Amino acid sequence: MSPVRYPAPDLNSLPDDIKAKVLEVQEKAGFIPNVFLGLARRPAEWRAFFAYHDALMLKEDSGLSKGDREMIVTTTSAANQCLYCVVAHGAILRIYEKKPLVADQVAVNHRKADISPRQRAMLDFAMKVCQRSHEIEDADFEALHAHGFNDEDAWDIAAITAFFGLSNRMASFSGMVPNPEFYLMGRVPKAK
Amino acid sequence: MSPVRYPAPDLNSLPDDIKAKVLEVQEKAGFIPNVFLGLARRPAEWRAFFAYHDALMLKEDSGLSKGDREMIVTTTSAANQCLYCVVAHGAILRIYEKKPLVADQVAVNHRKADISPRQRAMLDFAMKVCQRSHEIEDADFEALHAHGFNDEDAWDIAAITAFFGLSNRMASFSGMVPNPEFYLMGRVPKAK
Amino acid sequence: MSPVRYPAPDLNSLPDDIKAKVLEVQEKAGFIPNVFLGLARRPAEWRAFFAYHDALMLKEDSGLSKGDREMIVTTTSAANQCLYCVVAHGAILRIYEKKPLVADQVAVNHRKADISPRQRAMLDFAMKVCQRSHEIEDADFEALHAHGFNDEDAWDIAAITAFFGLSNRMASFSGMVPNPEFYLMGRVPKAK
Amino acid sequence: MSPVRYPAPDLNSLPDDIKAKVLEVQEKAGFIPNVFLGLARRPAEWRAFFAYHDALMLKEDSGLSKGDREMIVTTTSAANQCLYCVVAHGAILRIYEKKPLVADQVAVNHRKADISPRQRAMLDFAMKVCQRSHEIEDADFEALHAHGFNDEDAWDIAAITAFFGLSNRMASFSGMVPNPEFYLMGRVPKAK
Amino acid sequence: MSPVRYPAPDLNSLPDDIKAKVLEVQEKAGFIPNVFLGLARRPAEWRAFFAYHDALMLKEDSGLSKGDREMIVTTTSAANQCLYCVVAHGAILRIYEKKPLVADQVAVNHRKADISPRQRAMLDFAMKVCQRSHEIEDADFEALHAHGFNDEDAWDIAAITAFFGLSNRMASFSGMVPNPEFYLMGRVPKAK
Amino acid sequence: MSPVRYPAPDLNSLPDDIKAKVLEVQEKAGFIPNVFLGLARRPAEWRAFFAYHDALMLKEDSGLSKGDREMIVTTTSAANQCLYCVVAHGAILRIYEKKPLVADQVAVNHRKADISPRQRAMLDFAMKVCQRSHEIEDADFEALHAHGFNDEDAWDIAAITAFFGLSNRMASFSGMVPNPEFYLMGRVPKAK
Repeated sequence: MSPVRYPAPDLNSLPDDIKAKVLEVQEKAGFIPNVFLGLARRPAEWRAFFAYHDALMLKEDSGLSKGDREMIVTTTSAANQCLYCVVAHGAILRIYEKKPLVADQVAVNHRKADISPRQRAMLDFAMKVCQRSHEIEDADFEALHAHGFNDEDAWDIAAITAFFGLSNRMASFSGMVPNPEFYLMGRVPKAK
Repeated sequence: MSPVRYPAPDLNSLPDDIKAKVLEVQEKAGFIPNVFLGLARRPAEWRAFFAYHDALMLKEDSGLSKGDREMIVTTTSAANQCLYCVVAHGAILRIYEKKPLVADQVAVNHRKADISPRQRAMLDFAMKVCQRSHEIEDADFEALHAHGFNDEDAWDIAAITAFFGLSNRMASFSGMVPNPEFYLMGRVPKAK
Repeated sequence: MSPVRYPAPDLNSLPDDIKAKVLEVQEKAGFIPNVFLGLARRPAEWRAFFAYHDALMLKEDSGLSKGDREMIVTTTSAANQCLYCVVAHGAILRIYEKKPLVADQVAVNHRKADISPRQRAMLDFAMKVCQRSHEIEDADFEALHAHGFNDEDAWDIAAITAFFGLSNRMASFSGMVPNPEFYLMGRVPKAK
Repeated sequence: MSPVRYPAPDLNSLPDDIKAKVLEVQEKAGFIPNVFLGLARRPAEWRAFFAYHDALMLKEDSGLSKGDREMIVTTTSAANQCLYCVVAHGAILRIYEKKPLVADQVAVNHRKADISPRQRAMLDFAMKVCQRSHEIEDADFEALHAHGFNDEDAWDIAAITAFFGLSNRMASFSGMVPNPEFYLMGRVPKAK
Repeated sequence: MSPVRYPAPDLNSLPDDIKAKVLEVQEKAGFIPNVFLGLARRPAEWRAFFAYHDALMLKEDSGLSKGDREMIVTTTSAANQCLYCVVAHGAILRIYEKKPLVADQVAVNHRKADISPRQRAMLDFAMKVCQRSHEIEDADFEALHAHGFNDEDAWDIAAITAFFGLSNRMASFSGMVPNPEFYLMGRVPKAK
Repeated sequence: MSPVRYPAPDLNSLPDDIKAKVLEVQEKAGFIPNVFLGLARRPAEWRAFFAYHDALMLKEDSGLSKGDREMIVTTTSAANQCLYCVVAHGAILRIYEKKPLVADQVAVNHRKADISPRQRAMLDFAMKVCQRSHEIEDADFEALHAHGFNDEDAWDIAAITAFFGLSNRMASFSGMVPNPEFYLMGRVPKAK
C-alpha cells in the first residue's frame, strides 16, 4: 500500500474539539495512536467514530469488564486480519487483563487461549457475529446465558464486534499501521 | 428469533433529541423505520450511529451520488444477508435512481445488474472491502481511478461499506425486521 | 455479459409443439417469460427441461404445496445468485402464498423470513442439498420427519433444488434476464 | 445412509417405455446401471431426466467429442463429491478416450491430468459453471474461444455441467451407489 | 506444470543408503514409485521423509491396521487434491483391505464408502485434522473413544494425516505424477 | 483441551540421543521449548521430525536466509492458526531479522508487513502452497523468478511450508502450548 494515499493531517489544522481530544490522548498515552490522526481528515466521521467507540468501550454499567471488551476486539480483529487493531487493542488487552500472553493467544486461536470458559463463550458469540451474523439464532443466546451473560451483555458483545468490524475495514483499506509503541505495551512489568 | 428479545422503547420514553429526530423522520416518511426505534434503547449508541450515517449518506461534496451510495448499501448488505438493510435501502435506492428494478438486481448479483461500468467498478471495490478488506491493494484503487473515482471517492465507498457492515450485524443479531412499507416503495410510479 | 451471445429465436421459427406451449404461456401470463425463448434455441433440451419442470412443479400428489415449491426455488436460487430465477419465481411465490413480502425475505435470509417452522425445516434441507449434497445423512431426513414430511416429500424438496440448480446455472451462464413484469407481480392487491 | 430409503422398483412394475429402455441398456452394457432403476420410481421425472441426458450426451453435431463430454461429467462430479457419477462416468470416459488413467486424474485434480490444453480450458470453464456460475463473464468465453471453442460449444459445456449438477445432487441425496462393474471398466485392454 | 522443473536424479548418482533402499523397493514392487526418486535430489530431506513415513506406516504396535492407515492417507490426500498420493496409496489401500472398490469410494466421498462405523469415525477425525486442526477439541477425541480408539490411536490418525499433508504439498508443488502401475493395482484378483 | 492428554515424558526417561539433543537445546536457549518434550513420547517420530526440521531450517546453502525461513514459518502457521508455532517461530524471526515488529505483522496480515517485495513474493508462494497447493502452476514459479528466486529456492519455500503444516497440525491437535519465554524474545534490545 502506498503510505501517502491518505496522509494524516497536521494536528494544528484540526477542529478545536478534535485537537483537544487528540492532545488529551497524547497526554495520557505518551503518543498519538495513529487512528486518531488517520481518521481526522474527515471530522464528522471522526466525531461519530469516537462517540460510538466511547459509548461501547468506556461505559460503566456493563456485564463485560474492559478487559473482556478488548479481548473481543483483539479476537475479531484477528479474524478480519486487521493489523492496526490486533496490535493496538492487543496492547490494551494485556494491560487491562494484566496477562502479558493473552493477546497473542486469542489473536492466533482463541480456542487455545488461557481464558475462562465464560470468556470462551463470549468469544464464540463474537466470532459468529463477526463472520456469520445472519446465522445467529436463539441457541447462540442460550449459550451465553449458560455462562451468566444476559441479553444486554449479548448486545455489548455484538455491538463491539460490529463496531470494530467497521474499524478493521477502515484501517485495512486505508493502510493504517500501528504505532511501534503498541507492540511492547503490557508485555513487561514496567511497560507504560 | 424471539421478536421480544430487544423490544423497541416507547417513543415518549426517549430523550428529547432522539424523539425529535424520530418524529421528523416519521413526518417525512409517513412511518418510523424500525432501525430508529430498534437502536434507541441505547441512546449514546443511537446518537453515534446516526451521526455516522448522516456524515456518510447525507454529505453533499462527494463524487458519489446518493443513488450510488444506496447501491453500495444494498449490494453489500445482501452479501451480509441482512434482511433489514436490503429491503429498506433497496427501497431508497429505487427512489434515488428512479429505477424500480435495480435494487433486486444488485441484491441478487451485482454483476448482472443494469448499471453503468463505473457503478460496477464501485461495487466491485465495495464488495472487496466487505468480504476481504485485508487483501485491498493499490491495484484496487487503480481500478477505481480508471472509472474517474479519486481516493476521496474510494474512502466514501469503503466507509459506507464498513458502516453498513456494522449496521448489518446489529440488525441481524437483534432480529430487526423491515417495515412492510419498504417492500413496495419505489416500485410503482406513485409510490409514496 | 454481451446480451447478444445467445439471441432468442423468433417465435415463428420454433417447432410447432414448442410454439404452441409458448403461446399458451403467453395467453395465461400476458407475456412470454424469457426462459421459454432463451432455451428454445435447443428444442430437445427445451422439451426435457419443461417436462422435468412440470413433473416437479405441477404434480398434484405432493406433500408440498405449490407455494412451498416456489419457496424452495426462490431460496436456493438466491444462494446460487441467479437473477432470473429469484425474480421470476419470487413473483410466483408471492402469488401462491398470497404473501407479498415473503419472496424478498427468503431470498435475503430464509432464517429471518415470516414462514412456518415446517417451511423453515424444508428450506434447511433444500439449502443443504443445494450447497453440500455430499454431506446429506440420515439426521437430515429425521429433521424433516419431525415436521411431518415423509421421504417422498424429501425427494420432492431435493429434486426441486437439484433441478433449479441446473436452471440457475443455465440462466446465469447465458445471461438470461427476468422480464420486467415479474418484479412487481404479487406485490400489490390487483397485480395481474 | 439407510440403503432402503428409496428402494429400486421391480423391473416388471415399470411402465412399458421405461422397461424397454432399461432392457436395452442392460443388453448393451451387460448390467443395469443403478441410475436407471434408482430414478424409475418416478416415471415422469425419469423420462425427463433421460431425455435431457440424451439431448446433451448423445447428440452428434457438437464441437465436443463424447470423450470431452464424459470428461466434463467426471471432473465436475468429483467437485460435487458424487460417488455414483465419478465412478460410472469415469468408466465411460476411460472407454471413449481410450486412456485408462485419465478418469482418476481429472477426478483428483484436473490441473495435473494428462489432457490437451484445449481440454484444460474446457474443464476450467466447466468448473466455474459448477462452482461460481454467477461470476461467469465475457472473459470466460474468450478463454474458450482462444482454444477454438465457439459459443455453441460453451453452451454444451455449461449445459452438461448443469445437468450433472442435478444428477450429482439426486444421487448423493438418495444414497445411489455405483454398480461394481463400473470400477474396472476401461482399465484393462479387454474390459467388457 | 513443466515436467522437467525437478528432474529425478539418476539412480547411480544417489548416496549408497538411498540407492540401497530404492533398489529394495524396486525389488519388492517391481518398479520404483516416483516419490522415491522425486525426493532423492535432496538426500537429507529424503532420509527424514522416509524415516517419518516408516515410523508411522510400518510400526507394529498400533490400534490401526495398515489398511486403516492407508485409508486415512487416501481420504485426506483426496481432500488436498494430491494426484500422486491418491493413486499410489489408493492402490496400497485396495491391497491391504482386499477391497477393490474402497479407494475410489473414500477418495470421492468417505461418507458414502462401504466401511465400518469405526473407520468412518477415524476418517472424520482425520479430515478435521486435515482441514481445521485449530478447531480440534475434547469432543473430537470422545467421538473416537466411542468407537474403541484410545488417545494413542488418535495420535496415529493425526500424525498420519499431518505427515501426508506434507507429502501432498510436496507432490503437488513439484509436479510429481503417479507411476502408471499404481492405477490398476489391487483392482483385479491377480494384480501384482 | 485437556492439558494432560499427552503428558510430556520425563527428560531422564528419554533415549540417550534424544536426551542429549534436548539438553543441548536447553543449554543454548535457557529453557526447553515444549515441542522437544511434547513429541519425545514417540522417539522414532521425534528423530524424523527434527532431522527434517534441521535439513530445512539449518542448511547453509540456500537462497533463503534463516530470517526468510522463519518468516515463512510464522506466516503460514498463522494461516493454520497454530499457537505454538506462531509464538515460538515468531520469536526466532524477530531475533534473526533483528526487527522486533515483523513477526506480529506477518502473523496478522503479511500484505501489510514491513518487508521487502522479494519477501512478499516468497510469502505469497508459501501461502499458496499452504492453502491451495493443488493450484500451483508455472505462473507461481515465474512470480518467484521475477524476484531472483530459482527453483531450488522455490523448493525450500514449499518444503518449509509443508513441513510446518505438519508441525502445526501436531501442535494444535495435541494441545501443545508455547513456553512463556517465547512471547517476549526479540522484542527488547537485551532479550535473552
